[in-house]
Amino acid sequence: MDKGISQAVIRRMPRYYRYLGELLEAGVERISSNELSARMHVTASQIRQDLNNFGGFGQQGYGYNVQYLYDEIGHILGLNEMHNMIIIGAGNLGQAIANYVKFEKLGFRVVGLFDINPALEGKEVRGIPVMMLDVLPEFVKDHQVDIAALTLPKENAETTAVMLSTLGVNAIWNFAHVDLDNVDGMIVENVHLSDSLMQLSYSIANKKNK
Amino acid sequence: MDKGISQAVIRRMPRYYRYLGELLEAGVERISSNELSARMHVTASQIRQDLNNFGGFGQQGYGYNVQYLYDEIGHILGLNEMHNMIIIGAGNLGQAIANYVKFEKLGFRVVGLFDINPALEGKEVRGIPVMMLDVLPEFVKDHQVDIAALTLPKENAETTAVMLSTLGVNAIWNFAHVDLDNVDGMIVENVHLSDSLMQLSYSIANKKNK
Repeated sequence: MDKGISQAVIRRMPRYYRYLGELLEAGVERISSNELSARMHVTASQIRQDLNNFGGFGQQGYGYNVQYLYDEIGHILGLNEMHNMIIIGAGNLGQAIANYVKFEKLGFRVVGLFDINPALEGKEVRGIPVMMLDVLPEFVKDHQVDIAALTLPKENAETTAVMLSTLGVNAIWNFAHVDLDNVDGMIVENVHLSDSLMQLSYSIANKKNK
Repeated sequence: MDKGISQAVIRRMPRYYRYLGELLEAGVERISSNELSARMHVTASQIRQDLNNFGGFGQQGYGYNVQYLYDEIGHILGLNEMHNMIIIGAGNLGQAIANYVKFEKLGFRVVGLFDINPALEGKEVRGIPVMMLDVLPEFVKDHQVDIAALTLPKENAETTAVMLSTLGVNAIWNFAHVDLDNVDGMIVENVHLSDSLMQLSYSIANKKNK
């Protein structure tokens, strides 16, 4: 399914989903591609093209049914299934992620929080106690784990990824500042905060030079 | 300077910078584009093309001087200048960012931490006390502020962005789950964590369906 759809299109889908969710909250039932376009600062033809990749969802002269389009995009993004997530690294960032109630609304449920620092053992974040990493194999045996968020120093990221792969956890949401592209069969989505800061810095430098 | 360089190229630069930094730490003085290519899982011709956008930096048969290339890319990314950053929203995520020593190494210095929750007032993160948001105008008068990181709920993001613009702070590192594209002249770099999770979910769904 959905083979041959470009990464760029996929990367725009969550943004559509977010805008449609806001429209739903505001009680909007249908919207023309022109209105959606004006809101999103994307051309109407871009929106039509993007959605046509998945079969289109609009009707000439009617526009888009917001709820239907929201559900369909959610389905495309795999949000119709719940995902159980563990967080490895219970520092500030790991705790911040565990605290994001919004992720749960999207179907990402934090089921475990792990660290190697004994000082954190048993500390609770939103009712989830921090466990020591050495009980992870046992935990994974007893619980369905779909995603591991890695919020740990880059030095430990690769060995942790290999361990996860051995345990059958095959998707990583990676905040460690290293690419984990050497682990076979592992799906990795990176959030490289420093890269993002550098892009901001680039924009600042090039605005100044205008 | 650097007009007409595609966003895709710019987005790859921080990754080059990161890999070159690791090579430097490992004591590597020069590297061929083939070796760099193998390490980065990018074709050698892609690397050459990317760097040619900025005038190229390699020498036929010699490869790249790692320190020189590192410095040049740092310069392209504006990392030769220090950036003073404030963080608005001193919850877990704000505190996590304040605690990242690595950002300081890249020249991003956290100079202030703000919140509207009186319970946080005076709390110190890495020696930086949390201040109440109403003293921000005064703070910006007395301190150079180049970047504001917004780690606050999306409901407050837009008004905060407008206030920052009024105060002459024109670059935002935005973690709030909303696009801030309506503030004139503001440079915005978004970190949409939910979008990233949805992309991961998409990859999981489409791997299963293979």
